[in-house]
Amino acid sequence: MIGIGLVGYGYWGPNLARCVSESDGCRLAAIADASEKSRERAGQRHPSAQLHASWEEMLKDPGVDAVLIATPVCTHYEIAAAALTAGKHVLVEKPITETSEQAQRLIDMANRGGLTLMVDHTFVYTGAVRKIRDLIADGTVGDIYYYESTRINLGLFQGDVNVIWDLAVHDFAILEFILGAEPVSITAVGAGHIHRNQESLAHLSVHFDNGTLAHINVNWLAPVKVRQTLIGGSRRMIVYDDLEPSEKIKVYDRGVHLSADPQSANDVRISYRTGDMWAPQLSTREALLGVIEDFAASINGHGQPTSSGVSGLRVVRMLEAAAQSLSSGGHPVEFARLKAAS
Amino acid sequence: MIGIGLVGYGYWGPNLARCVSESDGCRLAAIADASEKSRERAGQRHPSAQLHASWEEMLKDPGVDAVLIATPVCTHYEIAAAALTAGKHVLVEKPITETSEQAQRLIDMANRGGLTLMVDHTFVYTGAVRKIRDLIADGTVGDIYYYESTRINLGLFQGDVNVIWDLAVHDFAILEFILGAEPVSITAVGAGHIHRNQESLAHLSVHFDNGTLAHINVNWLAPVKVRQTLIGGSRRMIVYDDLEPSEKIKVYDRGVHLSADPQSANDVRISYRTGDMWAPQLSTREALLGVIEDFAASINGHGQPTSSGVSGLRVVRMLEAAAQSLSSGGHPVEFARLKAAS
Amino acid sequence: MIGIGLVGYGYWGPNLARCVSESDGCRLAAIADASEKSRERAGQRHPSAQLHASWEEMLKDPGVDAVLIATPVCTHYEIAAAALTAGKHVLVEKPITETSEQAQRLIDMANRGGLTLMVDHTFVYTGAVRKIRDLIADGTVGDIYYYESTRINLGLFQGDVNVIWDLAVHDFAILEFILGAEPVSITAVGAGHIHRNQESLAHLSVHFDNGTLAHINVNWLAPVKVRQTLIGGSRRMIVYDDLEPSEKIKVYDRGVHLSADPQSANDVRISYRTGDMWAPQLSTREALLGVIEDFAASINGHGQPTSSGVSGLRVVRMLEAAAQSLSSGGHPVEFARLKAAS
Amino acid sequence: MIGIGLVGYGYWGPNLARCVSESDGCRLAAIADASEKSRERAGQRHPSAQLHASWEEMLKDPGVDAVLIATPVCTHYEIAAAALTAGKHVLVEKPITETSEQAQRLIDMANRGGLTLMVDHTFVYTGAVRKIRDLIADGTVGDIYYYESTRINLGLFQGDVNVIWDLAVHDFAILEFILGAEPVSITAVGAGHIHRNQESLAHLSVHFDNGTLAHINVNWLAPVKVRQTLIGGSRRMIVYDDLEPSEKIKVYDRGVHLSADPQSANDVRISYRTGDMWAPQLSTREALLGVIEDFAASINGHGQPTSSGVSGLRVVRMLEAAAQSLSSGGHPVEFARLKAAS
Repeated sequence: MIGIGLVGYGYWGPNLARCVSESDGCRLAAIADASEKSRERAGQRHPSAQLHASWEEMLKDPGVDAVLIATPVCTHYEIAAAALTAGKHVLVEKPITETSEQAQRLIDMANRGGLTLMVDHTFVYTGAVRKIRDLIADGTVGDIYYYESTRINLGLFQGDVNVIWDLAVHDFAILEFILGAEPVSITAVGAGHIHRNQESLAHLSVHFDNGTLAHINVNWLAPVKVRQTLIGGSRRMIVYDDLEPSEKIKVYDRGVHLSADPQSANDVRISYRTGDMWAPQLSTREALLGVIEDFAASINGHGQPTSSGVSGLRVVRMLEAAAQSLSSGGHPVEFARLKAAS
Repeated sequence: MIGIGLVGYGYWGPNLARCVSESDGCRLAAIADASEKSRERAGQRHPSAQLHASWEEMLKDPGVDAVLIATPVCTHYEIAAAALTAGKHVLVEKPITETSEQAQRLIDMANRGGLTLMVDHTFVYTGAVRKIRDLIADGTVGDIYYYESTRINLGLFQGDVNVIWDLAVHDFAILEFILGAEPVSITAVGAGHIHRNQESLAHLSVHFDNGTLAHINVNWLAPVKVRQTLIGGSRRMIVYDDLEPSEKIKVYDRGVHLSADPQSANDVRISYRTGDMWAPQLSTREALLGVIEDFAASINGHGQPTSSGVSGLRVVRMLEAAAQSLSSGGHPVEFARLKAAS
Repeated sequence: MIGIGLVGYGYWGPNLARCVSESDGCRLAAIADASEKSRERAGQRHPSAQLHASWEEMLKDPGVDAVLIATPVCTHYEIAAAALTAGKHVLVEKPITETSEQAQRLIDMANRGGLTLMVDHTFVYTGAVRKIRDLIADGTVGDIYYYESTRINLGLFQGDVNVIWDLAVHDFAILEFILGAEPVSITAVGAGHIHRNQESLAHLSVHFDNGTLAHINVNWLAPVKVRQTLIGGSRRMIVYDDLEPSEKIKVYDRGVHLSADPQSANDVRISYRTGDMWAPQLSTREALLGVIEDFAASINGHGQPTSSGVSGLRVVRMLEAAAQSLSSGGHPVEFARLKAAS
Repeated sequence: MIGIGLVGYGYWGPNLARCVSESDGCRLAAIADASEKSRERAGQRHPSAQLHASWEEMLKDPGVDAVLIATPVCTHYEIAAAALTAGKHVLVEKPITETSEQAQRLIDMANRGGLTLMVDHTFVYTGAVRKIRDLIADGTVGDIYYYESTRINLGLFQGDVNVIWDLAVHDFAILEFILGAEPVSITAVGAGHIHRNQESLAHLSVHFDNGTLAHINVNWLAPVKVRQTLIGGSRRMIVYDDLEPSEKIKVYDRGVHLSADPQSANDVRISYRTGDMWAPQLSTREALLGVIEDFAASINGHGQPTSSGVSGLRVVRMLEAAAQSLSSGGHPVEFARLKAAS
């Protein structure tokens, strides 16, 4: 039984606490939150967990084997580093850290200590994204031409990050998981209509080394909520609508064929293929429970979790490159140069 | 009764011919098409129109007062220039020409000859776009933060233009009509998965001098057809779905308020407003009929048509800037520099 | 080449005329309509067709081999009977006649004369309904538990028939085609809110001898247009939405299993099955063209058409039974008694 | 502070318990459930509540002022009667009892004891249904022509009741609340494809004395979940879709006008009105919390709750009449006769 200590009982922390108490191999040993009101709420729901006003204090508890960090992004590195130093396994909310340098240091610390370092890329544990990964991996979709994601709604404006760090991070994590390809360059355009220095709307384009062009549209000021991703492949196309109650993924047997044309170089021979559509049944298991269980399995010696510290680092690299493009007024940023510079 | 001569009886020409014959002030005098098969079809449907194998021949017909040009873009300038030289009024399919220089020359020719020069920006004549323009003009929407358009479907690959010239041109014309603002810079990212040199997918971001950020997503390789535009304003937001049979426009009384906070400069005070939604009844009059009638009214001395040659020129300037950004690998192109250079 | 004479160039006649002129084996020889305005419109579109002010006159034309009847229902019998007497093949708009007795007489006349008698049950020729028939016929759907149809919209109030004769007739024709079962009893409840004696809204329930319970909801006073049918079978379920542009039919691998329970007769053992959904690609061929071609094939000696006079008779019997239940205040009407009485 | 005792901690009980603990004027004093596993779950979530294996025992607890009954329908009467006899206020899950006779007896007992008797008609406390009631009450909708409800999904087959008692009861409660009219007659047609004696699908038509025709379609064997109600009035029409996340109610300014026609009695003059659509912002307050608070207010002397015992009785009368029609093979059952017989 792994003793879990949770830091942060605000917006997302209660969900983590619930999943820990529902999972078989874990025990919610302690909760730390500086707010008295939050601790009170936590105590009502989880009377058997030890409550702490400071996470430093909680890290001293020998019953805490592993730490979940659900605090603002700017505090992730400090808490995670202290926890690893104290010999605790660590699961951090997304994004793992503010900078790729911090993420790299955490990875190194975890490796040295033989500890599990994981980031909560929840979407990667959904039945829908797992199915997409499988459909790509087994060749059903073919070469991936594009990935087009729209992730918009009204609010929630956040204090410390812009809309890219809040919403586009999900798409970066999904791309990291399903494509298995390296980003080549990124272009980011955005606008902050409420706060000049905090983008509430952005468009990101990422070229990958396998030819995929990904585009991500994030917006905190949209009148309607949309969570829709189109994936176009040489063999099939996917529409993934996360707000659909049951048919989240639709696979279309559609596309175009280009036939070689002996008569003329100019003459284009395109034929359209419009076949059946198919909506596979998806696992309805709660994704966050899968995150907790993958964390526990890794702690119990079953290797790296799917959304490991390295996945977290790769996603932060994309966020950094997007920020750089944004601040340059939308000029493309190349990842090779980023690496060379680092 | 204005005698109309139509050049090109291919994909769009038959629609123009039908609208001419349904409009009160015009008479379909002649049709020119090099294809014998097309002329045969034209003759069956419009037995009273004179048929010509060459448009040069048709221009000699004194019964032709005005010419409609529905031929490939690369031929627009030559035919329009000849028609204006022959003293005919001219209505050209979108985009008006291949280059802004050509468009400027046509405008000058029309001005010198006292002739009407018009481009068929059909969307500008729809009940939906007219309603959006009114809602912006009367202050209902407030300051326009963003315009987000998704215009995707499977096919129709075209021989001579890419997806931007085929589809984004509609959004440029709509923006020209509803915003009344000057474009400042444009960024274009795209990919041609079927033909390397012909983009089938593109993302365009345009900054306007009134602060609006427009984004246009066009794609010929999408599994589903989408024609959706979101417009976010400081007072209200609009969702415009052109595929909805009856409620094409939904106006949302939603947004955020930022209240001045006396306590701290860092503390953000945002409140969300979620009010009613309202779908105004729209005119269901056929847009193309409105185009023909505006053309006729202008010929009859009622001033410039809404989608005048100048509108056509402004749209071609945006297409050119988009092409320049695309070929530079996605770097932003500034319109001021374009003008200075010209 | 079969010479076709069309009676009635009002709302539906122009569609029939267009399909005749587009089909290979037929020629639109003549059009009869008492209205001068309609004849004028007909002449413009079909200059080679002979125009007649009276259908009696048209029947004398030896160039007319077959007659299409697109006039009000109350005139169907008289015109069809005269046409058959004149030795012409006959295709009548739905419903074939006002009474089953009339339909039976036309069938007898056609049989005696060796002529084709057909009714235009257009839906039976759509790709969607054909696919449903196939999915039932090959056992994919299993035993048909229910057929639930919603066919509602605003208008079009008709002078001579109620909403059942206008809209439910489509479902009766579809049921006739896909089920291959005999109706046992029918219950009809309705209301006429605009005209007391003309139902604008009705609910019909039909029990079939194979155990299927069909329910049809028709309404001329609905704020939205709906054309949706659910078909529940022991193996699969179908949602057929005729307003969907491309995925009109969705096949769900869903249902319940009842397992025999040895422990107790009262204890119920139900397990739910929720599998994939599948939207087959459908033929997009125009249904009305299929009607004309089936008519021509039958005339050319290829046997009875799919929607034969007998199909028309069976549909009218259901309409009559529905009318009887309606006038009785909603009491069930049994078909056996109807037959016995006849 | 009202001490609440809950009987039944199965499917719905936990929701009641949560709402009691979230409401201000109530205290969850005790929970009774015969199942040890359910009591265990209850104890974990509500450690301060007294647990009882039998409800008889719980009724002896002087700290219990009022009782919530969330047990199978067949047990409602016995428990409620005992609770009222013990001087406790009573809130029963829908439907209030198995028979109208039982409901009448409970009403009499509550009246004699000066106790509150309430039924949990949850829908009546939703923002959507309250808004519909207001739109009808203030004349916005006009005369109510029809109420058409579709309430279908896959499962949940229940042991002791059929689909009418499970699902149509919601519509009966809504009709009771929004119409303020008396049912005149009811027709019920159904089928039980899994169990012959338990309908899994039914169609109910109810005529009301104000001219409204209500139709309710309930089905446990549908491949998709639908919760949609259309309400047609002489002035406006409403579409109420309970599965819509934000725009549950759409009000259409549509209809037909019948103008008196001086020329001819036969000639029908109908004009269609198609105006704006409007989706009012609705209260998002949890309905069940409203139920608990209305119960508490009534106990505290603020008169009868909205869904009083009398409302419960009226709904059971409709269920009984529906059952009678069903067992008669679909013959209409008149409410007047029901009353006369009772």
